[in-house]
Amino acid sequence: MPLLSLTGVFAPVLTPVDANLDIDLPLYVEFCRWLLQTGCHGLVLFGTNSEATSFSVAERMAALDAVLEAGIPAHKLVIGNGTPAISDGVVLARHALATGCHGVMTLPPFYYPKVSDEGLFRAFAYIIERTGDPALKVYFYHIPQVSGIPLSADLLDRLASAFPAVATGVKDSSGDPENLRRFQQVAASHAGFSLFCGTESLLLANMRGGGAGCISGMANVIPDQIRVLFERWQDADAEARQVQLNWLRNAAAGTGFNVIAAAKALTAARTGAPGWARVRPPLVELTPAQQQVLQAAVAVAEPVLA
Amino acid sequence: MPLLSLTGVFAPVLTPVDANLDIDLPLYVEFCRWLLQTGCHGLVLFGTNSEATSFSVAERMAALDAVLEAGIPAHKLVIGNGTPAISDGVVLARHALATGCHGVMTLPPFYYPKVSDEGLFRAFAYIIERTGDPALKVYFYHIPQVSGIPLSADLLDRLASAFPAVATGVKDSSGDPENLRRFQQVAASHAGFSLFCGTESLLLANMRGGGAGCISGMANVIPDQIRVLFERWQDADAEARQVQLNWLRNAAAGTGFNVIAAAKALTAARTGAPGWARVRPPLVELTPAQQQVLQAAVAVAEPVLA
Repeated sequence: MPLLSLTGVFAPVLTPVDANLDIDLPLYVEFCRWLLQTGCHGLVLFGTNSEATSFSVAERMAALDAVLEAGIPAHKLVIGNGTPAISDGVVLARHALATGCHGVMTLPPFYYPKVSDEGLFRAFAYIIERTGDPALKVYFYHIPQVSGIPLSADLLDRLASAFPAVATGVKDSSGDPENLRRFQQVAASHAGFSLFCGTESLLLANMRGGGAGCISGMANVIPDQIRVLFERWQDADAEARQVQLNWLRNAAAGTGFNVIAAAKALTAARTGAPGWARVRPPLVELTPAQQQVLQAAVAVAEPVLA
Repeated sequence: MPLLSLTGVFAPVLTPVDANLDIDLPLYVEFCRWLLQTGCHGLVLFGTNSEATSFSVAERMAALDAVLEAGIPAHKLVIGNGTPAISDGVVLARHALATGCHGVMTLPPFYYPKVSDEGLFRAFAYIIERTGDPALKVYFYHIPQVSGIPLSADLLDRLASAFPAVATGVKDSSGDPENLRRFQQVAASHAGFSLFCGTESLLLANMRGGGAGCISGMANVIPDQIRVLFERWQDADAEARQVQLNWLRNAAAGTGFNVIAAAKALTAARTGAPGWARVRPPLVELTPAQQQVLQAAVAVAEPVLA
């Protein structure tokens, strides 16, 4: 049964590539299964940690098709359709709907800097109106430190008012607790508008503020541990759990390595498939020496009790 | 006859859109003809001023096809194939080659900030190697204030060494005379590596430093005037001509309006086709009042003698 509104722990699924830098579909399907078995309520295919923008529309659609053909339930999937060209966003949204996916996660068009809220509203409106299906659910994606294009609370409020039941929520990957609070006010003003934090380190703060969960790159590595905090965020020891949960993010940040390359290197180590460490240009994979440094940092930091 | 290497004045062609925000192909073809008749040596289809990244790969290819079907000579065309996904860059490069175009102008993948030169080298190498045709000519595109991703002189030097005759040049749209000088040193070190400035205000400096010409948004409005300086840059009065040529850029900058929306508004005024003022989101067209302000500013600034 499709969910009316998402809630829980979601991974922006890492995208494995083969030696030709094409998506390694068998490895991808296997990884999606592992994530759902290990703690994720659902998956975001083609978020930032997925290197989404490094893959064409055709590559993204083929990867989604492979995942669905392998039996992964479509209603647990949100498809990243963020592209600089709004026409591409429509193509991806229609494909997501046609294949029964829950919805899409949409970046603002991200080439021109300093675009106005009016221009962003028109861009999102174009995607929603051209997709032309009241079943569409759009989660807007705020990650200004990467995209360069912030989404203001005013813009989200306008979108939620203009497109009720379609403008379904927002992912806040700014990592800024103040911004999360501003977005919580937007979510509180619109029934069914869900707020996800983009880092598990704000999961407790988000749940206490009425949020719906998190969509975090670290859910590619420790989905089980993040799931536990999600299940127990109302327990008396939730704050201690939150502090403990941050160990992996802190250990990875301490190495200074690119976080996507690091998550892939850790997945390579876990699965014993060295190809997992590959990334698509312009990112660069960790060297074997860097992978060792990372694994050592993680081994030291990992708590005995999850 | 295809040129071995480009030289001259090129417009990054504005892309007209109809009321549905689709490319207005008849208006586009007519405008390409006007540019070539009025002063441009050639055209760059899908640069920044073209709102290139706002159009999908399919839309860009269809527009190119329409231009060629209308009889515009392919060898005068360079196709912007900059996209965040390097696989899309390959599709566009192959289409440009298959249709006989001179070459491509390639942005670095522009989503992830702070990518390394190594990662950028791999991205460009992927496009060149996957396109897999020694006839390919790539002009790299440096516009860090928009793309967020600078191209270093070291990177260009490495690309020109690794792919001689394919890595054919660079467009420097930084507007920074110091950077232009650094790139002139790269061009001087590699036979056949052309340097274009991205602003006509540095045309004289670029020609004096061994450059090949300019690819400037203002060439959409005053191609004839820019052409005159290109033809006469060795004349005694060239510096006075350069100062005079800057009138339009200065007048437009003085209004504070978005430069692409402004160039389109001026084209709407010149052609009497008000639809020319439209832009694709996330950009926003000038209001009628703003268009009047712009036209007044331009009218005051326009020199009596070109």
